This record gives sequence, structure tokens and C-alpha cells, in this order.
Amino acid sequence: MTTRPGLDQLGLSTGKKARLHRILHQHGLGNGTAIFLPYDQGLEHGPRDFFENPAASDPKYVIRLALEGGFNGIAIQIGLAEKFYWDYAGEVPLVLKLNGKTDIPGAIDPLSPVNATVRDAVRLGADAVGYTLYVGSPAQEHDFRQYLAIRDEARELGMPLIVWSYPRGTAIDAKGGKDSFYAVDYAARTASELGADVVKVNFPHPEKQAGAPAAYQAEFSSQQAISAVVKSANRTLLLVSGGERAGDAAMLEKARQSMEAGATGLIFGRNVWQRDHDESLRFVGQLRDILAKYPS
Amino acid sequence: MTTRPGLDQLGLSTGKKARLHRILHQHGLGNGTAIFLPYDQGLEHGPRDFFENPAASDPKYVIRLALEGGFNGIAIQIGLAEKFYWDYAGEVPLVLKLNGKTDIPGAIDPLSPVNATVRDAVRLGADAVGYTLYVGSPAQEHDFRQYLAIRDEARELGMPLIVWSYPRGTAIDAKGGKDSFYAVDYAARTASELGADVVKVNFPHPEKQAGAPAAYQAEFSSQQAISAVVKSANRTLLLVSGGERAGDAAMLEKARQSMEAGATGLIFGRNVWQRDHDESLRFVGQLRDILAKYPS
Amino acid sequence: MTTRPGLDQLGLSTGKKARLHRILHQHGLGNGTAIFLPYDQGLEHGPRDFFENPAASDPKYVIRLALEGGFNGIAIQIGLAEKFYWDYAGEVPLVLKLNGKTDIPGAIDPLSPVNATVRDAVRLGADAVGYTLYVGSPAQEHDFRQYLAIRDEARELGMPLIVWSYPRGTAIDAKGGKDSFYAVDYAARTASELGADVVKVNFPHPEKQAGAPAAYQAEFSSQQAISAVVKSANRTLLLVSGGERAGDAAMLEKARQSMEAGATGLIFGRNVWQRDHDESLRFVGQLRDILAKYPS
Amino acid sequence: MTTRPGLDQLGLSTGKKARLHRILHQHGLGNGTAIFLPYDQGLEHGPRDFFENPAASDPKYVIRLALEGGFNGIAIQIGLAEKFYWDYAGEVPLVLKLNGKTDIPGAIDPLSPVNATVRDAVRLGADAVGYTLYVGSPAQEHDFRQYLAIRDEARELGMPLIVWSYPRGTAIDAKGGKDSFYAVDYAARTASELGADVVKVNFPHPEKQAGAPAAYQAEFSSQQAISAVVKSANRTLLLVSGGERAGDAAMLEKARQSMEAGATGLIFGRNVWQRDHDESLRFVGQLRDILAKYPS
Amino acid sequence: MTTRPGLDQLGLSTGKKARLHRILHQHGLGNGTAIFLPYDQGLEHGPRDFFENPAASDPKYVIRLALEGGFNGIAIQIGLAEKFYWDYAGEVPLVLKLNGKTDIPGAIDPLSPVNATVRDAVRLGADAVGYTLYVGSPAQEHDFRQYLAIRDEARELGMPLIVWSYPRGTAIDAKGGKDSFYAVDYAARTASELGADVVKVNFPHPEKQAGAPAAYQAEFSSQQAISAVVKSANRTLLLVSGGERAGDAAMLEKARQSMEAGATGLIFGRNVWQRDHDESLRFVGQLRDILAKYPS
Repeated sequence: MTTRPGLDQLGLSTGKKARLHRILHQHGLGNGTAIFLPYDQGLEHGPRDFFENPAASDPKYVIRLALEGGFNGIAIQIGLAEKFYWDYAGEVPLVLKLNGKTDIPGAIDPLSPVNATVRDAVRLGADAVGYTLYVGSPAQEHDFRQYLAIRDEARELGMPLIVWSYPRGTAIDAKGGKDSFYAVDYAARTASELGADVVKVNFPHPEKQAGAPAAYQAEFSSQQAISAVVKSANRTLLLVSGGERAGDAAMLEKARQSMEAGATGLIFGRNVWQRDHDESLRFVGQLRDILAKYPS
Repeated sequence: MTTRPGLDQLGLSTGKKARLHRILHQHGLGNGTAIFLPYDQGLEHGPRDFFENPAASDPKYVIRLALEGGFNGIAIQIGLAEKFYWDYAGEVPLVLKLNGKTDIPGAIDPLSPVNATVRDAVRLGADAVGYTLYVGSPAQEHDFRQYLAIRDEARELGMPLIVWSYPRGTAIDAKGGKDSFYAVDYAARTASELGADVVKVNFPHPEKQAGAPAAYQAEFSSQQAISAVVKSANRTLLLVSGGERAGDAAMLEKARQSMEAGATGLIFGRNVWQRDHDESLRFVGQLRDILAKYPS
Repeated sequence: MTTRPGLDQLGLSTGKKARLHRILHQHGLGNGTAIFLPYDQGLEHGPRDFFENPAASDPKYVIRLALEGGFNGIAIQIGLAEKFYWDYAGEVPLVLKLNGKTDIPGAIDPLSPVNATVRDAVRLGADAVGYTLYVGSPAQEHDFRQYLAIRDEARELGMPLIVWSYPRGTAIDAKGGKDSFYAVDYAARTASELGADVVKVNFPHPEKQAGAPAAYQAEFSSQQAISAVVKSANRTLLLVSGGERAGDAAMLEKARQSMEAGATGLIFGRNVWQRDHDESLRFVGQLRDILAKYPS
Repeated sequence: MTTRPGLDQLGLSTGKKARLHRILHQHGLGNGTAIFLPYDQGLEHGPRDFFENPAASDPKYVIRLALEGGFNGIAIQIGLAEKFYWDYAGEVPLVLKLNGKTDIPGAIDPLSPVNATVRDAVRLGADAVGYTLYVGSPAQEHDFRQYLAIRDEARELGMPLIVWSYPRGTAIDAKGGKDSFYAVDYAARTASELGADVVKVNFPHPEKQAGAPAAYQAEFSSQQAISAVVKSANRTLLLVSGGERAGDAAMLEKARQSMEAGATGLIFGRNVWQRDHDESLRFVGQLRDILAKYPS
Repeated sequence: MTTRPGLDQLGLSTGKKARLHRILHQHGLGNGTAIFLPYDQGLEHGPRDFFENPAASDPKYVIRLALEGGFNGIAIQIGLAEKFYWDYAGEVPLVLKLNGKTDIPGAIDPLSPVNATVRDAVRLGADAVGYTLYVGSPAQEHDFRQYLAIRDEARELGMPLIVWSYPRGTAIDAKGGKDSFYAVDYAARTASELGADVVKVNFPHPEKQAGAPAAYQAEFSSQQAISAVVKSANRTLLLVSGGERAGDAAMLEKARQSMEAGATGLIFGRNVWQRDHDESLRFVGQLRDILAKYPS
């Protein structure tokens, strides 16, 4: 097992340390691990994602689910935060997602435009902000500039910055795809180089090698791959994303390997709230059982 | 017993509610009451306050005391927050005191100059800011203007504002003194009128009537006085200050009457850290026993 | 011997740590101690201070003296820094003094007005800035406000802030005077509470008790007094000022006691450059011999 | 003879050097010396100064005089610069005086308020700006702050800053007066400490010793005094002011001693334009004969 | 041997001179030469560059290597600087690289987007900033505009600006390629024309002439080529890049010829940290032996 660094070993400012301490040690299991509930799919994909479990269309339902499930935070866009977080303010940490986009235009050079500020997050009592960076997109020039302003404001206000580090674009597609080991590894490192406090990545698939650089053209187990990705993130805490809904056993095994690799935790949305209520909590209970084995 | 309002009945913004929720429900007894440890006397009175218990000269000792004693927050100036809070960031809520002064020049028109900003508080992960308002001082014009800027910045950033509402000046002296029922009652109302989220007052002495307006020239029990003061504060949560060190029985009775009156809690400094370590914790334990009887 | 804290124990930001590392470990003895050469007396007292050693009227002579004497830094005003530091840029650390005043008007409520900015200091490659705070002056309200802006800009730019913490005013005079134990102790604590990184104080005189608070009305050796002052400064590094020129033996004993107490070093101006050249270096050599015994 | 430093020995930025080069080497005698014509008395004293030679009431007359007399620059306020400099733009260097005041209110704590900016000076093609600093005034706090902004803007725009360094106020009066050796010496040093490029002072009177510090209570010749003053200004070029109109022989001897001491030149207004036209030019011719002996 | 200019001959401001003095005379060999360790490949190429020596994936390992190897500075991106430099702040100079990109999208018109500011560099105690300029890229219009802002901020803050001057794009490919004598020579001059303080170039290959302008279609030795390049950079100090890992003998000969030509030093990354630890230091020792022969 890779040793996960403590909050005092990450070069954090006082405010970032205070807020991450709250998230990691005063919510969820309180053992330094975390499971986040992302709920920005209403913007990213539209209401179609709620058809499987219509209750999940109601933000209030999902925030309550985060509380009931003992999540360490809920990641939402500004509109839902303004209208729904007051009821539960402080009860579950808020991660304000600062950018987002619809998936309507076919994006060959994706960029996620900013729709809220770090000041909004402070004002709403959030404990972190989220930013989607499309690593490998031809729009990286615009993306980096937009990101710089948010990184800087987050620094000034002591607000932890969680980067959704997503490989995207035709070049990524040509080099193994967005969840290849190469792409995920590069994405984790990019977030670290650009100053994320926490990075969210997909679980890497080492078998997707077509077109990837020579270094990745070899046999790697998925445990080796996720361990390398955590190492590439170095002092940036790493969260593994659930992505689209998949089989439970596979998801739990990914979770276990991630924690074994030294990840800080998980960020599972659709795999949670696309089930009915009790089933959601049962699945989260299984994830918590895994996290409980990796205290720091 | 006066009923203390819940956080959802105070007209709070989302950020203020989130932060007060943390203070009142995720620290201390977690029952909606609070006991704060103020530690700005090194600036207000100088090191002489530490001669009785030299260990208390060390900010680290005092922050640890706040943790060990289960306090809901520690109130310190910017310098100590910058240098000492990192070690315990998030473990005990920080109340950044934004103004303060030395007691060297004889102040007939006291004013407490600002030495830090609400942004500093946000940056350091504080859950509230403190401001000393000298009610009745001839300098009130300057004081109110300075206060306005802070109230406004606190509003913009969702930061709860605790006002140390202190009657001061020759006019106050001539009307019963700074801890008369009249003065304390007026101070509580003034903080409420000016937009404090929480007000810190001294315990009122209804027998100090000399020079006070006619309305206060009557028999009031101390329970009646503190009840009236809490009512004057209306939706501004009220904390009762310990002031200079005094006898334990008297302090505990004050605490009991305050909570009975509907106060949210206590803010005791010298009465706590001017004792030796174990004695401090024993006394705090007695205060907590009282608070435990007044959940909300 | 009190243990002096290392730079990694002071809650410093990266930039402040980098700059203090340079000053304390890459100049002078390089052992974590420091001796600074202050040279702002041309503004504070006028050219009369140079009559004893006319060569010292020339800033170039004094900067060279700092180099020859192995000083850890030279503290000058903006005008001299602009015109004279280029020649020796980087060879001896620059401490840009940001405020200052002439001593022409009789000051009963002294305030030292700002004449340069932290940006000036950055632009000139300085490793620290200096600010004179007149503790106890009735002008403290204005002083604190002016100081706040500088503290904040220094924080933003990672520039160490050295506070010349000088008790002044009629209230100080009435309580034992500007170099009483009471006054110096309070001054050290005030700088710490307000967020100085380094504080410069006069050596305390415990026998000056007339009018001081009761706590200081007792027998204290000068060693006890300076040790208490260093403790009051807690994580703020402490420098002892030489003040007006005095006898060598007394100065050296003060230096020894200061270092024994845990001070970081000395800041001696007139006691150095009011002598002729070789005599200056001989005296500095004696001071360095003392510092050499207190590495950290 | 003290050696006057060249422009390459003063720590000047490129723009300041370029503009001073124009003033000192492309106008007047072109030998590194200078004689300026100040013409701000219409504001400082009112039209009464023009009664002796009514022609001098017309700015056009005075600017032409500067051209005919071979002056190195003319110092005027913004209003005259806007209306009259266009006619002769570039023919004689413009020194835009940025502050000034009427002498109507009796000033015990004088301050000269700003009425133009360094940008105005750039816009008008000026080669320097002028600022009056009242050294020793109780208003120094305000003065220094106002001065800081101008010094900084002048630096950013590469504009030479000439400080009219004038001792003023009751404290100065009590220590020997505004043209005592003590006062002038301190004024020269103050300008240097605060970053003037050029300083304008009165000729010092060493016999005015009443109330001055001990160092100045001795026999000094006027040559010794002016030499000390030039030394106190160090790398700040020094101009000697003519002041009120006085006898020609005395003025010429002052000029000679000043240049002998290492001054850069003279700034003579009323002594020039309060005469009739031809007489003005005759007198200036005598001053130029002196300057011609001190090339650099 | 071409004579390398001293720091006082380069038209540097005080702050730039102070910081370059530190880099060139207080670190490394302290003889005016420099060897820098660039470590931004994690962003530029991704983690694949660390597969040869997995230890090099850890920024802490590489910063320690810079210390052990006696490097004059380490060039990293903001994220690594924030998280890893604190531990060694001031011990080895920091060059904050302000722009960078992933190599995922195929760039025919490369531009390196900015992700940090000169203020970040100041705040972190850096002694220089780095900027990649893609000379010849069709995106040069955007590049120059982006560069202008950084050059200006670097000037205002006295921060030396190191330009990674990289010929890139299809036009460069058609004229001899990115390391042709023509391309490198033009790149050195471009950085000088645009105001770089230091320029980093590849070693020129005079034999790559296909498509180059006529002037370069001749016999040049590599010594002649690098000498011409250093001359093209004039008062901009020149560093020669190691580029991809190559044979030791060839690298050492390039280094020798560069220093002989008047270069200030080397910037070698992969050639250093892609070896194992002891081998890295051995190779650096050989480079230092060369630099030792070219003091200034």
C-alpha cells in the first residue's frame, strides 16, 4: 500500500488546510478518506440522466442523499447551490463547481466555460471549488488562462481547488482514448503541475495502448496503472471518478485498487443516484467499508 | 426559559448559516450552544495578563487548551492566527478579531483600530470575525464608519460577524458605568440595530443605577436584567463575557442565568487560561455542564 | 539558553521563508543569527549624527562597511536604496525601511509616515521591509491602519516584515519610559499580535518601574527581562537594537544576554558607524564572536 | 572644489538620465551645470510680486526671458504650462511644478497641495517635475504620503523629480529658522533619503544657531556650510535658490560658493524677473560666467 | 574566447541585478556561470519522461538533486513550486516557469499558454521567471502580446526574465529545422530584441542548411555557429539547452564550445535526471568542471 500523505505534508496554506481538514476529518468517515457526490450532470448531460431514477431530478433529494449516505461533500453548480444549499448549510460540505457546459454541441476542442467565482463559493460557505480542465484539448490555451484566474483567486481566499482533469479531444482519441493509462496519467500530472489541491481522474485502462507513447506500450495491471497515476499526482490528493454507471463488483474493485494505490477517495455520482433511494445507500455503504480500511 | 431561535430563524445568508452551523453544531457540545476562548489580551493589556500562568503566554498552549476543553472557537488577532493556527487548522473554529488596541494611552474617547480584514479571515479558514464597538464613545462616528466597511465585507463573503459590544467613555461612566443594566442593554440593542450576527456583552448589573435613565431606576433581579438584554438583542445571538477573573461560584451562576435567559453561550478567557492547565479544564467542564442543559 | 525556533517552525509562507533563509543562512555568519546595519538616521535625526565620523555621511561608505563587516542586511530608506544599492545589489541583503520621519516637530503623538511600498522593495530586490510602529502613541489608530496595508502587501508578495516596535508617547513616559521592561515587553507582544515576522526592540530596563503595572513592580535581572521579552514575541524573531552609542562593554553584555535569551540577533547602527572605519570593524568582530556561539 | 558626480553615477533610470541629459547638456551652457527660472510666485505670493516689473506678470514675457537668458529650464504651474508652453515647446525645458499653495492662510503646519500629475508633465513634454516638501512641518505625515505617490509615478514614467526642500514650521523657527545651516542641511538630506533626483535648497546661514542641535553650535564659514549641505545631498543633484531679491554682489558670491561646493546650479526667479528686461539678462550673464567655471 | 559581460554592463535594474547576482554569484560555482535544472517535462511531455528513472517522478527528489549537484536554479511550474519549494526555500534559486502546455494536441501553430504570474514568482521567493516563446510560430501575434504583459510585470517587479526561445512551426521545418544555425541564431536575436534578460537556446547545427537563407548556406564549424549565436544575443545572457538525452561526450563538447563562445551557462534536465542518482551527479560534476574554467 502506498502511503497517503497527511494534510500537513502538502504545502497547504492555513485556509486550504482548515477546509480540507473539515472535509476529510469532520465529515464522512472522518478518517482522512473521502467520498464525494457530484451532481452537475443536469448541466453536463441534461435531464436525461434523471430518467432512470426520477427522484434524482430534485436537488433536494440528492443533497439529502449526500447527508444520509455520509458523503464528504456534494459538488453542484451555482444555481442549485443558491437555491438548495441553505437548507443544509454546513451539514454537508459544499464543493462549488465553477465551470460546466452542455453536451449539445459536438465538441472536438472542448472547453468548459466558467459560470461562478471563488467568491461565490466563499459567500455560500463552500469548502472547495471544482474546475474541469480538458487536458489535451486544442482549446488548452484558453483553458489554462481561465484556470489561472481561478487558481489565483482560490489561493487568495484559502479555498481548496479540485480539478476534474479530463483528457479530451481528437489527439487523445488517437493516442488510446480518454481513459487510457497514458491519458489518465498525464492528466493527473498536469493537474499537479498546474497547482490543483485535489485531482479527480477516471480509473486508468492500461490495455488501451493503441497510439500511446512507447512507454505505455507494455503490460501493466490496473493496480500498477492506478498506483502510477497516484504517484504522478504527487502532493495533489487524488479522487477516482465513477463515471458512467457500471457493474457494482467492477466499481468496488476499482475503488479498492484506488485506495490501495494511495488515493484519497472517490467521487461517484450516477453510480449512486441513478439507483433508487435504498439501493443508493446500500451501495455507498459498500464503498464506505472500503474507505474505512485506509485511514490516514 | 426563553426559547433560543434556531439558525434557520435568523435571516442568515447561506454562508453565515453554514459557518455558524459548524461552530454551534459541529464543535463543542454540538447542541447549538457555544463557549469561546478569547485570547487577544496580549494586545489589549500586554503580557502582564500572562504573569499568573506563564504557560498562557504561548499561543500554542492556549489553542491546545481550546481543543482539549472542547471550545466552539478561539478568538485571536491576525498575527497569532498567521503563525499558530495552521497547526490546528479546522480542528477548532477560528474567530479572527479584526480590531484591537493597546491600553497604554489613556483613552477617554476609545476606538479600536482595524488591523485585519474579512478577506484575511476567509483566507485563514476562519468561521467568524470579531469587531469591538465602543458604544457611547465620542469616537462613535469614526467607529460606525469603520464598522460599516467590515459589516459589508462580512456580508459579501458570508462571514458571521461577532460584535464585542462594549459601553465605554465618560458619558457611560456618568450613567451607571460600563456594566450597568442600562449600558449593557443599550449595547446589545446597538449591535442588533447595526447588523451583528452575534453580540458579546458583559453580564449586566441592575444595581448600578446612578445616573442611568429613569427606566432603569428600579428593582431588577440579575435574571430579569440578562433576560431583557437577550431580548434586546432579538435575532442577534448573544454571548456573555467572563471579563476579569472572578470567583467560580459567581461566574457559574452568571453562566446559568445567561443560558436561562436564552443566551447562545459564553466567551471566557482570563477566567480560563489564568489558571493552571488542569484547573482550566475542570472549570470549563463546569461551564459545559450548564450549556448541556440548554440545547436548541 | 532558550531555544530559538527554526525557520520551518514559524508559519512562514514560501517567499518569506526563502528571503529569511537568505538573510539568516547565506549572509553574515550563516548560522541562523543576524546582525543588521540600520542607516536611516539621516532622515530620523538629520546629518548631525554623521558629525562624529563624517565618512558615514556617504551611503556608499556605509554599504561597504556592511559588506566588510559581514552584516546580514542593511536597512535604508527608498532614496538611498534607489541611488546606492545597485552597485552592491545582492551582495548584502537590503531591508527597505518603508516609513520614517524627521525629528524636527516635537511629537507627543508620534506617527511615522510611509514613504515607500512593498512593491518598491520587491522591485529593488530587497529581502525584507521595515516599519516603525509607535506602540502606545495616541496616533495608534492611524498607525495600525497604515500598518495593515503594509502587512497585507508584504504577505501577498512574500516579503518578510520587520517591525521597529517602539514604545512612545506621554503615557509610556508616565509608566516607566520607552525602555522599561513593561514597555519593551508590551512592544514585543504587540508586534507579534499584529503579524510581524521579525521585531526590533530596545534592550529592556527592569529597574524602570515607576508607574508601570503591578506585574512589573518586582525584582527582575536584565537577563530575566530580555528572556521574557523574547518569549512574548513567540514566533516573531527578535532583534535587539543598539540605540544611541554607549560603552562597548555594556553593549557586548547586552548582546550576549539577548542571544542567551533566544534573540535572533542585533541591529546596531550608530554604535558601529559613528566610529572610524577600523574601529567599526573591530567592534563588529566582537559582536560576531557572540553570535557565533548561538547557531540554530 | 568638490567633484560633482556625472549623470552616469547617480543610479538614474534610462528615462531620467535622458531628460536630465537634455537639461544639463543640451541647454544653457551645456556643460553639466544649470540655471533654472522659477515662475510660480503668482500662485505662491500673488500678483504683488509683479508690481516691481509689470512686464513679468505676462508668462509669455518670462518664458521668452528664459530663452533669451539661456536658462536650462523654466518651472511653472499647470495652468501656465497649458496656455503658454506650446509657443516655445521644446525650446526651453519645462519643469512642471506639481504642487503649490497661496500664502493667504497663515500656515503653522504648512502643506503644499498637489494640482497636477506626472502624466500632465509627460503630456506637455516636460523634462522634470517639481514638488515642494515642507521639512519639519507637523503636516509631514500627509506630505510624505502625497509625495510617495508622485515619486512613484515619476519613477514609472522616467521623469526627473526636483524637490523644493523647504524647512518650515514652528519647530524649525525654534531651532534656528528656515535658512539656518541645521535646517538646510537636514532638508538636503531628507530629499536624498526620500528619493529626489534634484534638490532645491536655500543657501545656509551657519550663524543662525539659536536652538539648533549641539553639532551645529560651532564656527562654520558659509563655504563650509554649503559644502556640507552638498555632501548631505550625496547623489541628489543640488540647486541653490535665490529666494527673495537681494544685493547682486551677495547673490553672486553665494552662487560662486555653491558651485565651488559641488552644486549643479542655481534656481533664481525674483532676482531675475523683478528687474527690467535688459537688467535681467545682464545679471543672468554674470551667473552664467560663474557656471562656466564649473563644467562636469 | 569571447568575453562574457559582467552584470553591471547589461543595463539591468537594481532588482534584476540583485536576483541575477544571487543566481550567478551565490549559488553553483559562484563564478558568474550557471547550470540550471529544468523540470517542467511532466507538463510538457507527461510522466513518460520519468519511466527511465522513476525516482525522478517525485519533485522532491529532483529539487534535492539540484541542491546536491550544486545547480544555480531549478525551473518548475507553479504547482510544483507551491507544493515542493517551501521545504528548500532559498536553498536553491527558483525559476518559476510561467507558461507551458501538454504535447497531446498536434501543434502546427504552437503557443505556450500562461498559467502563472510574475507576482506568483515574487510571492514564492523566485529569483527569475521563465517564458517559452515559439519563434516562427503562426501564433506569434498572440505569443508576443502574451509575452509583453509578462515582460512588463517582470520589469515592474525587478524579476529577471529567462526566455526559452524555441524555433517552431512548419516554416521553421522548411528552413532547416528547429536546431539549425539559422533558426537558433534568429531565436537568440529575437529574445534580445524583445527584452529577455537571459535566453535559452538549443545548440545550433550549422550543417542543417536545407531551405535556410543564403547567408547560412556556407561552411561553419559548430564553434563558429555557437559564437555567432552568443553574439546575436548581445547583452542577453545565453544558456544552452541539453534537449533530449544524448551521448555524454557530445554533450560535454557542446558545453565546452558554448562556454568558449561566451555563454553564461547550461540548462540540462533530462540529460541529468533520466540517469540514476549517482550517475546524475557524476555527469553534473563533469559539466561543472567545464564551467569552472570560464569565470567572469
